[in-house]
Parts: sequence; structure tokens; C-alpha cells
Amino acid sequence: MSGTARLIGVGVGPGDPELMTLKAIRALERADVVAHFAKAGNAGNGRTIAASHIRAGVEELPLLYPVTTEIPKCQPAYRDLIREFYDTAAASIGARLDAGRTVAVICEGDPLFYGSYMHLHARLAARHPTEIVAGVTGMSGCWSAAGLPIAQGDDVFTVLPGTLPEAELVRRLGETDAIVVMKLGRNLPKVRRALARVQRLDGAIYVERGTMTDAVVMPIAQKSDDCAPYFAVVLVPGWETRP
Amino acid sequence: MSGTARLIGVGVGPGDPELMTLKAIRALERADVVAHFAKAGNAGNGRTIAASHIRAGVEELPLLYPVTTEIPKCQPAYRDLIREFYDTAAASIGARLDAGRTVAVICEGDPLFYGSYMHLHARLAARHPTEIVAGVTGMSGCWSAAGLPIAQGDDVFTVLPGTLPEAELVRRLGETDAIVVMKLGRNLPKVRRALARVQRLDGAIYVERGTMTDAVVMPIAQKSDDCAPYFAVVLVPGWETRP
Repeated sequence: MSGTARLIGVGVGPGDPELMTLKAIRALERADVVAHFAKAGNAGNGRTIAASHIRAGVEELPLLYPVTTEIPKCQPAYRDLIREFYDTAAASIGARLDAGRTVAVICEGDPLFYGSYMHLHARLAARHPTEIVAGVTGMSGCWSAAGLPIAQGDDVFTVLPGTLPEAELVRRLGETDAIVVMKLGRNLPKVRRALARVQRLDGAIYVERGTMTDAVVMPIAQKSDDCAPYFAVVLVPGWETRP
Repeated sequence: MSGTARLIGVGVGPGDPELMTLKAIRALERADVVAHFAKAGNAGNGRTIAASHIRAGVEELPLLYPVTTEIPKCQPAYRDLIREFYDTAAASIGARLDAGRTVAVICEGDPLFYGSYMHLHARLAARHPTEIVAGVTGMSGCWSAAGLPIAQGDDVFTVLPGTLPEAELVRRLGETDAIVVMKLGRNLPKVRRALARVQRLDGAIYVERGTMTDAVVMPIAQKSDDCAPYFAVVLVPGWETRP
């Protein structure tokens, strides 16, 4: 068993397979095992992005979430299920690393920025060599699709989850230059009210499926409150002072 | 004179040429003109990253900053020089677009995230078709080199310039989960004091030249105050609650 088996977190970017890096493609092509996260019965977005770079006959290891949105995250039952899922997934990968096999884990966006891979990394990095292949984030995909310069110079840039209480959103939105609000979904009406309170509604852009061919990009003022997917974002550009 | 001449902002990632995307490579290989920013007498980091994908004989358009750090940014003389520089660069690119030539502008990192390209985009996007090729940011390159999971779940993530006054750094560092402090340089002692004040010094990582082969990655506690380059960063991971 070689001692060079590595765990590789491979960022495959925000959706467009053309936004994969050379490094990601080589890591997938050379790995002994390719793992990916998915919901049971679903191909997994990351797997779909990377599909053409997965070698025929390579060992594939699907890691199937036991639960996604069926149980609220704050409930102990959710945490227990998810903890057990990551423990089991890490053990499964660890066994392959122990056997001298390099395991590449496909990660949408960037592996260490709001990604599931981090839970495997935290469990395995102390015992095994690891490597991270940085990827284009979903946020970059969104502001690029919108053609929206987001932050410049000495701007303070902040990523806020739409799940925050309205008063906290108002306070934080009011004291930052460039903003991405993620996890929109049913939080959209609240986020809209908070942006209006701090007079940042003008210029705020709503983006859905940023780097897909069916991307939706529009001023938030034109977006109705009735439906927004969980992964939609609102972008508020900073960059007030331009030379 | 084709009517399809486009301005393309091409993100080439943080430094490692392997972190270029397929889309960036194709955009550079197909462009009629390849522009890049540089300091006079210098190859330009972006140009160096992308070198092997620039066609022999393609028209290259170096955009040479008239000034970088010689004059403080707050002085009117600096703003005037920089404004004139971007005006002239945009006019030069605009003339090529008018002649039906597609111009790719090489951008380190991601074109619309703290990048010089944004100043060209703002001047040209109203009159010409534009396209943005998202890139891996310098920040992603840094936390990947450090193997440091940076943000997860409902974390608030903030990018702060080290140029902020110390009291403001303390206030902002104290109310965010995951942090990148950029523009370190001679601000390092101030940033260190601010991190200590809010008890975030433990776990803070100093990174210099994140995706270069001579990268420096160390706990900030081990880094002396005497010298830090302007582009060094400090990373403070969020992610307190882990399932």
C-alpha cells in the first residue's frame, strides 16, 4: 500500500462545465476513487458538472444525504442524522485511503467555502495527506452572469444568509459596501424589506441558477415574492467611488 | 466588420496556471486582441499565469499603470492619473471593438471581485457586448493552500481591508464569523492587535503568495510584524458549530 494516497477536495465550479479548472480535471482523471454528494435518487449537481471527466471504470462513491430540507436544521434529529452521515462517509473514504487509494471528492463551487466537503476534511485531515483544488464559487458565477462589478478598492464585502432575523439583516446590510445574500427561498420578502429599510434596493440584483443556461437575472424590484429557490441570491454592488 | 465583437473579462485565477478554467483558456485562444494590466517594466502577474495560452502572433495590448503605490490613493493627483489611465485604456479597447475585433482582458482572480477590469467594464459595457469569465479568487487560492475550511452553514463571511481604522476593525471583526483581512502590508501590527482585542487571534492564519510554489502559510501568532507584503492576507475561519 503506497503511502501517498491522498484525499483531494476538488472544486468543480458553479455549474458550467467550462468553468472547471485544469487542476480539477487532472485530479478527477487521476484519482483511484471519485466521490460525490447527492440526494438519494438524484445525480448530484457536482457529478453532473464533472461527468465528462470521470474515467470509465473508476470506482465511484456516491455519498447520499439522509435528509436535506425535510427536517429543520435546528432540530437535534437533523443534527444527529447529518453527523452520522458524515461519520459514515468519512469512514468509507478513510478505508480507501488506508488501502493506498487516492480519493477525489467532487465539490460544487469551492471546497472550503460553504461546502459539504469540509465535514469530511475535518474528520480525515489529521490522519491522511490532503489537497484542495480551489474552484470558482457560486457567487462569482452569479455576479459574472449578471455582468455586475461587485466590490472594489477598500470596499467591505459581506455574505449574509437570508435566514438571519430581519432586524439583524437591516443592521448588517446598513454597514457594508458590497453584499451577497444567500439562502433566499422563502426569506425573499424579509430580505426585500431589509434592503428597502437601508435604501439599498436600487441596484440590488436577483439571480437564480447563475451559470446555467436558464439563468434568471433581474433587478430585485421586478421579482415577485411568490417563489424563489433556496439557492437564489441577491447581489448588492459596492463600489461607490469610481475613478 | 462583424457585429459580434465582444469585450471579455477573463479571470485567470490566483496564480497557479492549472487553476485557469477551460472557459478562460478558450476565450484567450479565440480572441483577436489580448489585453493585460501591468506596471511599466513588469510582465504582469495575469500575463504570466496565462502565458502558455496566448496565441503566437495575436495582437497584445499591455495596459501599463502610470502609478501604483508611489502616490497615496487619497490624493487628487492619484485619482486624476488613474482616471486618465482607465479612460485611455478604454478608448484603446473601444477602437478595436468598433473595428469588429474581440478583446479579451486578462484578470488575476475573478474579473468583478476587486479587479482593475471593472473600470474598463464600467466605461465600455453600455456601448459593446460584454462577457465575463468567472475565475478562482485569490482568497480561495489562499484558504485552499492553507487547507483551512473558512465558512459553513449560516456563517456571516466578511472581507475587510487592513487599511480600516483600528477601532473599526475591532468592531467589525467582533461581529462576523468568517473573515478575510486583505491589504495587509504595514497594517499587520494593527490587524493583529484588533484580532487580539476580539479574541480571534487563535486560529487566525497568515498567508503570503497563496498559490505560488513559495507560499508562506503560518499561524499569525508566529508571524513577525516587521515585513508583510501588501497582498498578504489573514484568514479567520468561522464554522463554530460542526455536526
